[in-house]
Parts: sequence; C-alpha cells; structure tokens
Amino acid sequence: MKRTLISQTPGKIGKKVKLAGWINNRRDHGKLVFIDLRDRSGSIQVVVIPDKKDAYLGAKTARSEYVVEIEGLIKDRPCRAGAECKPLDRVELEAEKINILAETDGELPVDISAEEMNLNLETLLNNRSLTLRNKKVNAIFKIYAEELRAYAEALRRSGFMEIKSPKILNAATEGGANFFKIKYFDRDAFLAQSPQFYKQAGVGSFERVFEIGPVFRAEPHFTTRHVNEYVSLDAEMGFIDSFEDVMNQFEQTVAFVFDEIRKNCQEELRLYDAKIPEIKTIPRIKLTEALDILDKEFGKKMEGIDIDPEGERMICDWAKDKYDSDLIFLTHYPSSIRPFYTMPSKDPQYTESFDLLFRGVEIATGGQRIHNYQKLVENIKKHGLNPEDFKDYLNNFRFGMPPHGGWGMGSERVVQKILGIDNIKEAVFFPRDVKRLNP
Amino acid sequence: MKRTLISQTPGKIGKKVKLAGWINNRRDHGKLVFIDLRDRSGSIQVVVIPDKKDAYLGAKTARSEYVVEIEGLIKDRPCRAGAECKPLDRVELEAEKINILAETDGELPVDISAEEMNLNLETLLNNRSLTLRNKKVNAIFKIYAEELRAYAEALRRSGFMEIKSPKILNAATEGGANFFKIKYFDRDAFLAQSPQFYKQAGVGSFERVFEIGPVFRAEPHFTTRHVNEYVSLDAEMGFIDSFEDVMNQFEQTVAFVFDEIRKNCQEELRLYDAKIPEIKTIPRIKLTEALDILDKEFGKKMEGIDIDPEGERMICDWAKDKYDSDLIFLTHYPSSIRPFYTMPSKDPQYTESFDLLFRGVEIATGGQRIHNYQKLVENIKKHGLNPEDFKDYLNNFRFGMPPHGGWGMGSERVVQKILGIDNIKEAVFFPRDVKRLNP
Repeated sequence: MKRTLISQTPGKIGKKVKLAGWINNRRDHGKLVFIDLRDRSGSIQVVVIPDKKDAYLGAKTARSEYVVEIEGLIKDRPCRAGAECKPLDRVELEAEKINILAETDGELPVDISAEEMNLNLETLLNNRSLTLRNKKVNAIFKIYAEELRAYAEALRRSGFMEIKSPKILNAATEGGANFFKIKYFDRDAFLAQSPQFYKQAGVGSFERVFEIGPVFRAEPHFTTRHVNEYVSLDAEMGFIDSFEDVMNQFEQTVAFVFDEIRKNCQEELRLYDAKIPEIKTIPRIKLTEALDILDKEFGKKMEGIDIDPEGERMICDWAKDKYDSDLIFLTHYPSSIRPFYTMPSKDPQYTESFDLLFRGVEIATGGQRIHNYQKLVENIKKHGLNPEDFKDYLNNFRFGMPPHGGWGMGSERVVQKILGIDNIKEAVFFPRDVKRLNP
Repeated sequence: MKRTLISQTPGKIGKKVKLAGWINNRRDHGKLVFIDLRDRSGSIQVVVIPDKKDAYLGAKTARSEYVVEIEGLIKDRPCRAGAECKPLDRVELEAEKINILAETDGELPVDISAEEMNLNLETLLNNRSLTLRNKKVNAIFKIYAEELRAYAEALRRSGFMEIKSPKILNAATEGGANFFKIKYFDRDAFLAQSPQFYKQAGVGSFERVFEIGPVFRAEPHFTTRHVNEYVSLDAEMGFIDSFEDVMNQFEQTVAFVFDEIRKNCQEELRLYDAKIPEIKTIPRIKLTEALDILDKEFGKKMEGIDIDPEGERMICDWAKDKYDSDLIFLTHYPSSIRPFYTMPSKDPQYTESFDLLFRGVEIATGGQRIHNYQKLVENIKKHGLNPEDFKDYLNNFRFGMPPHGGWGMGSERVVQKILGIDNIKEAVFFPRDVKRLNP
C-alpha cells in the first residue's frame, strides 16, 4: 500500500490508508492506546484497540519518536462542543497494523511533543536534531525556506540573475580584521565575509545579480543578533540613477518576500502570533535626522555620527509611532564608517548608503558604489589602504563599469524579527558562534 | 527618459528610446560610426552620423567596453538577402545623443567582442571580469542560473524543504583527509566537504530536504573535472522503500532541470550547438556488470571492483550505443569504497548506492543510508573509525530516523557536460584550484 500523507486524511474518511511518521506522543489507557502520529504534513490521532492484535502489540511497544508505519481506517472524529476544530482534528485513524521502522536508544533528553518546550537556549541547541522536530521550532524553518524561495523569485522577476561566488579568498579584503584564516594547500587563504567584490564583477557582466550564500565573520560577538556564519541575501544592480533606485528595488523585494510568507505560512505564523507588516513605502530618513530625533525625543546623545543598537530600537519605536511602519531606512552614513567602495554624497563627508532596520534591528545594509576607476583608487588611499592589494577588484573598474549599487540582508534576522524570537541562534538550522561548533 | 532594454527595441520601431550598455565594438567609417551596443538582454547596431553632433562627438571618443547611454530613434533595418535575421538584426538605433557613463583605463587585455575568443584557459580566467562579458561565456552562467532555479523548483514540487547547513565544522568527519583547516578563534575547525550529516538531520525533522551550497575539497587534483570549491546540489529523503526510490526521485529531478534549461535557454544552447537529452528512464546497471562490459567490449580490465575516469567514459559510450542514453546509473558500489553510512546490500560486500554518469563523467553520487543506530555504530567501527568521534551525528539515529537516502550533484559539471566545455573551470564564475585563488 502506498503511503498517504497525514494532511490528506480529511479527504479519506471511510478509507484504508497507510500513514508513516514519528510518534509525537502515546497515551496508554490500559485497553485503548492513543498515539499522536506526526509527519511533515501534520499530526493525527491514532486509536489502537486490543482486538487489532497486529496493531496493539506495536502500540504497546512503541515510544515517543519511534518511527512507524500504521495501516488502518480513517474515521470521522466529532469536534468537542465549543472547541475550534481544524480539519485534522476532525479525523482519526483506527489502527489495524503497526510496523516499527526505527526505535529510539534510551531516554529522550528533552520532550518535544508539547507546543512550548520552554528550554533554555543551550539545551535547545545541544539537542538540535531532536528539538528541530518540535512543531514551533519546525515552523521557523518552513518560514525560512519560504523566505529563500520568495527572495529569489522577487529578484528573478526583476531581471536579476543568480550567481555563486567563491567563499575562499586570496586576501582579507575590505581592510577588515574579521576574516577567518584557512590553510589552503601550501599557503594561507581567507573565508569570504561578503560576496561584495564578486557581485560587483557580476554587474559588469550581467548588470543585475543576486546571491544567496554563507558569509563568515570572525567577530567575537556575544549578542542575540550575531552568529559567526550566516546566510546573506545579496543583490547588486547596474545602471542606476541614484541610490534611491537601489532602495526602491530593495523595498519591492522585501515587500514581496513578506507578502509570500504571509500568504504561504499562515499556520506557522499563527503558532507565534506573528503579524507580518504589509509594506507600501518604507520611511527614509538621514542618519543625522535620526540622531536629532534620538536627542530630542528620547534624550539620547550619540558620540560622533553613528547609531548604536539601543538607538536603532528607539528609532524603530519612533517610526512605528510616527509612520505606523515596522521598517525604516536610515541613509547617508558618514564615509568614515562605511567601506572605501561606498559612493560619497555631494557633501563627501557622507555617503549614498543606507541601513534597513526592522523592529529594532538592522537587517540589511547597502548603497551606491563608486564605479569610476580613478575615484575608487583615490578612495582606497583615503581609507589608508593600498590599491595594489585590490588589483583584481580594481580590474572590474578599468574595463567599464556602470553606476551601480546593491544590498546584503541577513536572512536569519528577517525570520527572527518576523516571529519575535529572542535569539537569532534559534533561527539558524545549526548555528555557529564563538563557543559553538556543535552539533 | 526611462531606459529601454535592447530586447524590447523590435517593438519600438519609429519611436525615440534611451538605451544603455557597453560598446561591444565600434567601427569608425570616417563619416559614419557604427557601434554594437550590448546590454543584458541583447545587442543592437547603432548608427551615428555627423549631423547629430551630440552623438557624434561621443561616438568618436568612445572605445570598446565604455559604458554609455544612447538616445535616438529605432529604425527598421533590412535583412540582407539570404541572411538569417533575428528580430534584433532587423532594427537599428539612429543615435541622437551619447552620454558616456564610464570609460576604460588603458588597453583592454583581451578582445571579448567576437563570439569565439580562442583564449587559453589561464588568460580566460586571469581576465575573468572581462571575459565573463563575452557572449558565449555569458551564456554559460545564464544556463547555470537556470539550473539552480529549476533544481529548487523540481524538489519543492515534490515536497522537499530548503535548508542551509553550516560550512564550518568542529571535526573533519567522514574520516577523509580532504578537509581544509580553519583557525576558528582559539581553536581549529574545518570546512564542510559535504552537507551530508546535516541533511540527514534534516530528514529527522523535515523528511525531505534539499540544499544548494558550496562544498570545499582539499584535493590536489589537476584535472578538467575538479575544482576545490564547488556548488553541490544536495537532497535527502525519508520513508523510502529502497534506494530505487532515491534514484526515481533523482531521475525525475534531473529530467525536470534538463527540460527547463532546454525550454528557457534556447539561444544560449544554440551558441554551443548543445543538445540536452530528453530523459525518460536512465539505464541502471550494477558496477560489476559495468566492469564485465569494460572487459568484454572494450578489453579494459580494472583492478578490484572500481571504475576509473576512462572506464566511465567507455561505459557512457556503451550506454549511448545500447540505450541511446547520455546518462547511466552505476549501482551497488563495494562497501570498501563507500562511506561508512552507506546502506549495505543483502550481500554486505556491496552497498545500496549509485553514481550518475553523464557524457563520460560522474556528475552525482548517492544512495540509501543506514538509519538504525546500532547498525551505524557497528559500521563506523568496521570502517576503522571511532563512534565517539561521531557523537553529534549519531544522536540523529538515537532519536528515531526513518529509512532514507539522497544524493549530491556537482552543479558545475552538469553545465560543463551540457555545453561540451573542456574544463570545468570555465563553468565556474570565479574558480578555485590548487594554484588559483585569483581573481
């Protein structure tokens, strides 16, 4: 008999089926045994009565997280008066045969059957291959997968081509110290902390490119919004008139991703009581204006022209109050705190750049890049770097590069903030931090 | 004026437009100047006459690979008698204004305007940011992007969920020596040479998963089919009856990818005179049968039960002759040459595993995995490894794991063999090999 997915059972009342999955939990009432069977599509109650000996023996033996195949009859199940019954609450399986495909070894370290596990972060992550099976944890990654899909679709619709750039680099570029070093045969190499240079090369050959790939940051952070390896959603586009074009394209992309998640992950969002903002236009204010607002409305003074995490939270509160927006673009960061390739504004103290904040956290950074070769060489020097170290990169600009810009967005932060998850590590499949390389 | 893409010009005859792109080449006939303008959508001939002073000055100044905006009138262009004229050959732009957006710096090291560049591999790759702009090279990556898209779509349609697993690992697992070592804060770590363990964890929580991501192999190969960093198309599926289920799913996936590329990349395929096989069923023969065929039909004797690259080419010739198939599955590799997690066959000397060969080259490897905890522990020992070193991995199997299997496919090899490209490095955006970390 062919396997039926649990989600299909409401259409099979009165029919014999074979289901397969994990035993989410099992309640032995002496004579009757009840099993909640879970597969990738949902959960169903299984009833096992002593008369069905083939099933009963299996049901008595089985334990939580055993993998089983169960054959039986799909029956109507009455909805308790006043209860809110979904289609899978209105059916049950009367088991006739249970076949155990895999047992567990010893006690399970955590109980994953309840909707809320209430585990601390270390326990949750140490037992990742088990805790991922919990319904609420599982939902995070369904939403994450939808984010990946929708991001690519949004950009393809706008004529962007997908690229895959190398993660092993010859040099620790961009002048940063946050590179992991690799032993590459008989020499040293570095792990890419961004596909920046390669997506710009992509503009030179394909005009509009995007990349979904891992980036590696050797930063000794211990925060709720940093991991040392994450998946960056990058894009870069040529023939722009200004960095407003980049923000427009990005805004449209984020709106599409949010719309798709809202539409296709309703059940998963419901588990978190999560509301996804409907994006029309995202307010855009200069960083200097934001600093004024922090000063005047929150009594917070920043040293120099920059904003800290607390300031980001405050400015998001302000945007929510003033524009009813969960997102806000801060623009025109000072050139002193942006990479050398960032296009200077008319006042060269500032740059044609932006950060996108979402519910208190920076989720993306972007802007226009310098496309003129000589200007780029000068700016490398201005940043105290040596143009010789950027020879390969500079070649892109010696061969004719259009005005262009782009962004990089942290894929996991988006899901974290959509669901209101405390720590980003919960939104990463198997996260990596300063202390954690396991499992 | 808003930019018009070159591909849209056949619908704009008699209209004023603004085009933007690169000067593919420029022919100065004294009075008349002809420019081939190239953008991401195609190429068009631009005619510049001295009367249009705003354009003429620009046309006289411009050189190959300058980035320009050109405004002018789209005109009908007669097709020469006997010539095969495509839509873009039947239009031209009469320039009225040329605006130079970016110049080049010095001489271009290679001429990319011709369809055939005839460069040696080193020159091609050393000048990558320029050579990627060549029409034939460009086409490789359009097909590659379509492969990525179609692979994900095929699997989503079959209920597979996308995951992103960590590339930084605590241990050099699978017992191999081909790992790159990283300095990870105060300790050593390793770069993943496969998402194997994590996609199996994915089966435990999501049943069917796929991943598109980089893998890193510290193998000192100097061949036409190896690079040290490539993008692997992985998938893993639970609740299989046998490894035939895995091959069926994989066959269907490859067929879909090929169909989509055939349909959506006609122009790119034409540049290479490439024909994509229509896959119905891919022949499946045991490795031992293949070795018999090599012996009897090609007079080639292998030492031991394994096949070498020459044997793979021969068996592909044989499959082409016998089944008119460009692809063939070889199955049941000996357990001695497969990883410890491979499911043994009834005769435990062999395994429930396969390789997929395409036009003479192995493009994928897969099979059923051991899902029983005790059996896996035993097999780790049998392979001379220590179960203690696989504690995290083994946890997946202590908590109930269904019968499962999957595959990993080299994304770049697929494109290489579709187009008949000599060296895989040509099919990688910025390839990495033992000697090459630049550009």
